Amino acid sequence: MSIEIIFLGTGGSIPTKRRNLPSVVVKRKDEILMFDCGEGTQKQMLLSKVGINKKMKVLISHLHGDHVLGLPGLIQTMSLLGRNKELEIYGPLGIEDFLESISKTVQFNLNYSIKVNSINEGKILETNEYEIFAKQANHGIPCFAFALIEKAKPGRFYPEKARALGIPEGPLWKKLQTGEDIVFKGTIIKSSQVVGPPRKGLKIVYALDTRPCEAILELAKDADVLMHDSTFGNDMVEKANEYGHSTSSQAANIAKAANVKKLVLLHISPIYNKNPYKLLKEAKKIFPSSIMPKDLESIKI
Amino acid sequence: MSIEIIFLGTGGSIPTKRRNLPSVVVKRKDEILMFDCGEGTQKQMLLSKVGINKKMKVLISHLHGDHVLGLPGLIQTMSLLGRNKELEIYGPLGIEDFLESISKTVQFNLNYSIKVNSINEGKILETNEYEIFAKQANHGIPCFAFALIEKAKPGRFYPEKARALGIPEGPLWKKLQTGEDIVFKGTIIKSSQVVGPPRKGLKIVYALDTRPCEAILELAKDADVLMHDSTFGNDMVEKANEYGHSTSSQAANIAKAANVKKLVLLHISPIYNKNPYKLLKEAKKIFPSSIMPKDLESIKI
Repeated sequence: MSIEIIFLGTGGSIPTKRRNLPSVVVKRKDEILMFDCGEGTQKQMLLSKVGINKKMKVLISHLHGDHVLGLPGLIQTMSLLGRNKELEIYGPLGIEDFLESISKTVQFNLNYSIKVNSINEGKILETNEYEIFAKQANHGIPCFAFALIEKAKPGRFYPEKARALGIPEGPLWKKLQTGEDIVFKGTIIKSSQVVGPPRKGLKIVYALDTRPCEAILELAKDADVLMHDSTFGNDMVEKANEYGHSTSSQAANIAKAANVKKLVLLHISPIYNKNPYKLLKEAKKIFPSSIMPKDLESIKI
Repeated sequence: MSIEIIFLGTGGSIPTKRRNLPSVVVKRKDEILMFDCGEGTQKQMLLSKVGINKKMKVLISHLHGDHVLGLPGLIQTMSLLGRNKELEIYGPLGIEDFLESISKTVQFNLNYSIKVNSINEGKILETNEYEIFAKQANHGIPCFAFALIEKAKPGRFYPEKARALGIPEGPLWKKLQTGEDIVFKGTIIKSSQVVGPPRKGLKIVYALDTRPCEAILELAKDADVLMHDSTFGNDMVEKANEYGHSTSSQAANIAKAANVKKLVLLHISPIYNKNPYKLLKEAKKIFPSSIMPKDLESIKI
């Protein structure tokens, strides 16, 4: 089971012809986790054919317009297109007021329900298969970074090993597969004899609109993918600090120190419209496994 | 002096790859009049290179999301790009609450001022050169149609006629040009001897999200351009009525009865994505001077 990450909007602050405002979709089995929802996200979602009636959670990092103003339109469009599943939304204090005040003036008339959760730092949700943690980033206003951490999956089952031990296919295999030891013809057969070690789940971290900071270094530790603010290049390091953003080199330093597998550079400033790859080049010097996706590109992990 | 109409978003309800949500820009001298502002309008505006620091008025027909949810992002982006001129916004009751509640949660930090006006039917604004009238359309909620009516301009000045009368170029020409009669070498020279009759100003009507109705027929009388709701085709006439919209044929009938010069079909439903020109064909049978612009196309009149 792999995870697909679709980059709906890879720009920041202002939309351009090439880069929409921030939004990333993580597809995991039959569920969609959306991180941020800038204006235009509904259109990007339709173009990416993600589907509008899936089990879905939206996580909003902070309440700056470029990260949240696409949410009302997405909510409306999903209803017009027949969504009937509940939509869960998580975001900082104020997210409820934002949605409630808009729904009062714009009259959604939704045919599905919305559950809005104001979050704090720490574990913000847990399912049978994963947990999501939020941590304060270092921006100008309260802004959360998120870590999606899959729980360990049972180890791989080796049918040839079970067969070699003479165990017939059927209920005994099932028991061994799920970690149970069995007694077969008077002998104890341990699950670990036919099943590999538990497989670590994936860890995916989303940290946009932040200066490089200890909190994110910690949150990103050993992540498979770190999506990090990369608004500016080395030429604008002071601007980055002033506005609560990072350069691609700073993102790369965090990725390296946190020992992540892959760094994704996002929130690219429109000022690099003509030469965004300058930012990628600078990051790769420090952390070679860096990528800078275009809008609607995706990766599988 | 001509007027340019730029169709930023020609779709309705839901954005598609080809058609964005409703927004039309009327460029008149150094001023921009924007009619409606669906999600994605700021991007269309940037693509159309309309400019973000022009004298500008935004007129919102009604508070359904697809007509107004682009406004907060546009306001924010214009500030980020350095707008410093006041922005005037006109819309139905509720427009102030909508913008105020968003500005409270999303924190615009604008570097220009916004003047929001809740409007009623009748003349909603007047300048030296034009007036704008609003009239209730026939939709599901309060929804205004707008008529921009230019004041008559002075007639054309014929220098060759002035010269033939022996009048020297200079202050006397100026007087004649602006309608003043003069005495030249003891003879009364009437302005009308060298200046043509006053030229009628242009009349442009915007009527989206409405059933065909008497009010719009009246508002559109003799207009140079009527932009009319054309959500559906003849196959969906009942749906059009149910949802408070028009078919392209109904729009064409209004255009014909109102004796307009040109009909622009807008708010095209996504269901006609594959064959929108069916709607144009149906309209042209009734009113040949119909057009169905694509996004970002423009006309000059």
